[in-house]
Amino acid sequence: MSRPLDVIIIGSGTAGLTALREVRKRSERFVIVNDGPYGTTCARNGCMPSKVLIEAANAFHRRLVFEEFGIRGGAALTADIPAVLRRVRALRDSFVGYTLQTTEELRERSIAGRARLLGPNRIEVDGRELSADRIIIATGSRPIVPKPWLAFGDRLLTTDTLFEQADLGRRIAVVGMGAIGIEMAQALSRLGIEVTGFDSGHRLAGLTDESVNATLDALLRREFAIHYGSAAELFEAPDGIGIRNDETRIVVDQVIAAIGRRPNIDGLGLESLGVALDAHGMPPVDPHTMQIADLPVFLAGDANGQLPLLHETADEGYIAGVNAFATQPVGFARRTPLAIVFADPNVAVVGKRLSELDSAETVNGAVDFDNQGRARTAQRNHGRICVYADHRSGRLLGAEMCAPAGEHMAHLLALAIGRALTVNDLLRMPFYHPVLEEGLRGALRELAAQLPTAGTSELGTCGAISPPADPRAG
Amino acid sequence: MSRPLDVIIIGSGTAGLTALREVRKRSERFVIVNDGPYGTTCARNGCMPSKVLIEAANAFHRRLVFEEFGIRGGAALTADIPAVLRRVRALRDSFVGYTLQTTEELRERSIAGRARLLGPNRIEVDGRELSADRIIIATGSRPIVPKPWLAFGDRLLTTDTLFEQADLGRRIAVVGMGAIGIEMAQALSRLGIEVTGFDSGHRLAGLTDESVNATLDALLRREFAIHYGSAAELFEAPDGIGIRNDETRIVVDQVIAAIGRRPNIDGLGLESLGVALDAHGMPPVDPHTMQIADLPVFLAGDANGQLPLLHETADEGYIAGVNAFATQPVGFARRTPLAIVFADPNVAVVGKRLSELDSAETVNGAVDFDNQGRARTAQRNHGRICVYADHRSGRLLGAEMCAPAGEHMAHLLALAIGRALTVNDLLRMPFYHPVLEEGLRGALRELAAQLPTAGTSELGTCGAISPPADPRAG
Repeated sequence: MSRPLDVIIIGSGTAGLTALREVRKRSERFVIVNDGPYGTTCARNGCMPSKVLIEAANAFHRRLVFEEFGIRGGAALTADIPAVLRRVRALRDSFVGYTLQTTEELRERSIAGRARLLGPNRIEVDGRELSADRIIIATGSRPIVPKPWLAFGDRLLTTDTLFEQADLGRRIAVVGMGAIGIEMAQALSRLGIEVTGFDSGHRLAGLTDESVNATLDALLRREFAIHYGSAAELFEAPDGIGIRNDETRIVVDQVIAAIGRRPNIDGLGLESLGVALDAHGMPPVDPHTMQIADLPVFLAGDANGQLPLLHETADEGYIAGVNAFATQPVGFARRTPLAIVFADPNVAVVGKRLSELDSAETVNGAVDFDNQGRARTAQRNHGRICVYADHRSGRLLGAEMCAPAGEHMAHLLALAIGRALTVNDLLRMPFYHPVLEEGLRGALRELAAQLPTAGTSELGTCGAISPPADPRAG
Repeated sequence: MSRPLDVIIIGSGTAGLTALREVRKRSERFVIVNDGPYGTTCARNGCMPSKVLIEAANAFHRRLVFEEFGIRGGAALTADIPAVLRRVRALRDSFVGYTLQTTEELRERSIAGRARLLGPNRIEVDGRELSADRIIIATGSRPIVPKPWLAFGDRLLTTDTLFEQADLGRRIAVVGMGAIGIEMAQALSRLGIEVTGFDSGHRLAGLTDESVNATLDALLRREFAIHYGSAAELFEAPDGIGIRNDETRIVVDQVIAAIGRRPNIDGLGLESLGVALDAHGMPPVDPHTMQIADLPVFLAGDANGQLPLLHETADEGYIAGVNAFATQPVGFARRTPLAIVFADPNVAVVGKRLSELDSAETVNGAVDFDNQGRARTAQRNHGRICVYADHRSGRLLGAEMCAPAGEHMAHLLALAIGRALTVNDLLRMPFYHPVLEEGLRGALRELAAQLPTAGTSELGTCGAISPPADPRAG
């Protein structure tokens, strides 16, 4: 048998490709094995095509405020759904194209096939055995579809198939009001499809702040129905797919399953590693090193089920790629938590969720956008931001929001939280006028008013320039 | 004569009202004097009505990408300009309403009339003399209109009169391509008016980075003509107002003068203060205290001609209000510079302009949005961001941009600059996917590659968790 490779990477999605980039900086002795279509989940079925669909849907939805703006003729606009979907695929193909270049140029070091672990240093792929000093597993995830639902054939959609449709039915049920479910339900509803959402919980998009959740729920329900309650069941109906939970029973043309994604670890041979697997078949993975137990094996990206978000997955591939060449795996500090749902208004959770905080140690501030100046000029005055800070230090700890431009304000807050800034530090920055960030400032001021460290002003005094403030100015 | 008041405030615009808020916390012995219509420039003629107009214009403009999105019927949309302007006024009246409440409840302590200084502690208003320990001058500014242009009567518009129009002409020239000129020219052009821009310089909207300026110039010229060259001259023409510079000569129905704003200090009696006035009649004002020389007189807001931006004006009113009660005026550190032009894409300058930096000490990074993923999904893939950092410390110093969501990214950068963060500090934050901030990250990575402090990764290693990185990982 030939000398072992330095690294085998299993999976050429985002995590696999970022791992590959690090591996290639350090060695030519590697292979990358991929099963199924090439191209990342993000580019092929995830972030990108969903955003293309959403942008078209939001542009069409905007016609509803045209009369108020003084724009005439909006009622005659129509959404050509086959054309919308063609554009989704055209742009998707372009995005996927970028991700294919890397593996295509690798030639024989890129292997198409299904890999199975035979041990911590050995795999089998299509009857061929390969060994390596290190193995990086980055096999991604796939949408969860309850087995009985498969009986509904191509009328049962997931993000794997939705964007492949030439057209869509008039009535669509979306099961699961998490990030993907909400994004797709709102987009399709805005394109004129009769959408009904189902969820077995009462919290939307991972929100834990009941006040933000209630705001989002009310805003979404202006656009489409959402039925909470027991888990949705499907049944064959004379004129379509029947769907029911304990709150409703309707018939639709198609159902989108958006109840989560499952790591692609089944059939991978993880049991051959000799470490304990949990009830889901998952081995222990250190989130700072990506290492499985103390083995020369790393599990990165959606496949480890920890942080199935593109930017985290890219980091995990990087970490695994670096650690595949470290004598001792390096523990990397991870980024400030940030999750965004590209609904309108944007939903975002930054830093700590409300549910993760001790209410006795935390002060809360909030703002509603109903009367926010800039939001009113744009007819986008809906939404709410809640911010949380440590009651002693005044440090900003987290935020939950559904707000116009929330995706942008979430980045601002992520920077602040990551740098351990206080509420007053944030209030020292310029807030231009008129901007939506002034709404956020309102919530921050509400925090500041509850903090012992609150001064009289957001403007710090500059002692170097002149004497300290007169006590009367305090 | 009765005992002097504690404070007289002259002017009840933004600076006057923020000063008033501080004064009222400390004394009941004050008056506020205002000449002309009540309501702030911002609410009545500035930030707010312009944004209302811009939002309608941008919504209408969006129809041009409808076909690409798969939305049919966009060509039949029309902008009802009288209706657009009615909405501008309706919202403006609502915004102005908020600003009126404060002075209305003051009764006899709010005086309508034109104040003239008689000395550092005394004013005259409508023949009545008033004295006070301190005087705060906050008389605002007004659009500059060359005297000969007044001959064109109500066909010569400024932001004082534009929003009052019941309808607009088919052809409008906008003279001055600063912030206001660009905002109005683009908005009116997008509403279907044939707009022609004039500017006697070659730099738009205060930009000093030629590459950003060129990007903006090219984007704006897709929408309306801009003629640079000599100062525009107006002349009476048979079918309208003639306007010419050394590059062109056209006839329009109306001209908008957007060549700047002049502090309202003429006729105010500043010469009675006994301090030297400059060629414009302006006394020396400390930008950290708002104090005029060592007098008990403060000059805040647009009236001092320093930083005629709403958020700075509000700070200056605050500073003046606090210092009117300080035994020694307090020097306040001002905020990180931030200027935004609400064009599409947004123009922004944050921190230091390129022209203020020493090129030998600075590294530059840039990104164009033409191929930025999220921008492509939204058909908004136009624009450019340039960022500047100190070549030794890696600290971010400034940025100039015209970019989609630039107003939001400018706030992110303002926070970073204000906190003296380095490029690597910024790259440590999460950048969600797909967001426009990933474009900004590209520019930051370009900076990082030129900095000696650049590491191998944006992810810091977490030493507490495991041993340091293997040298091979470096």
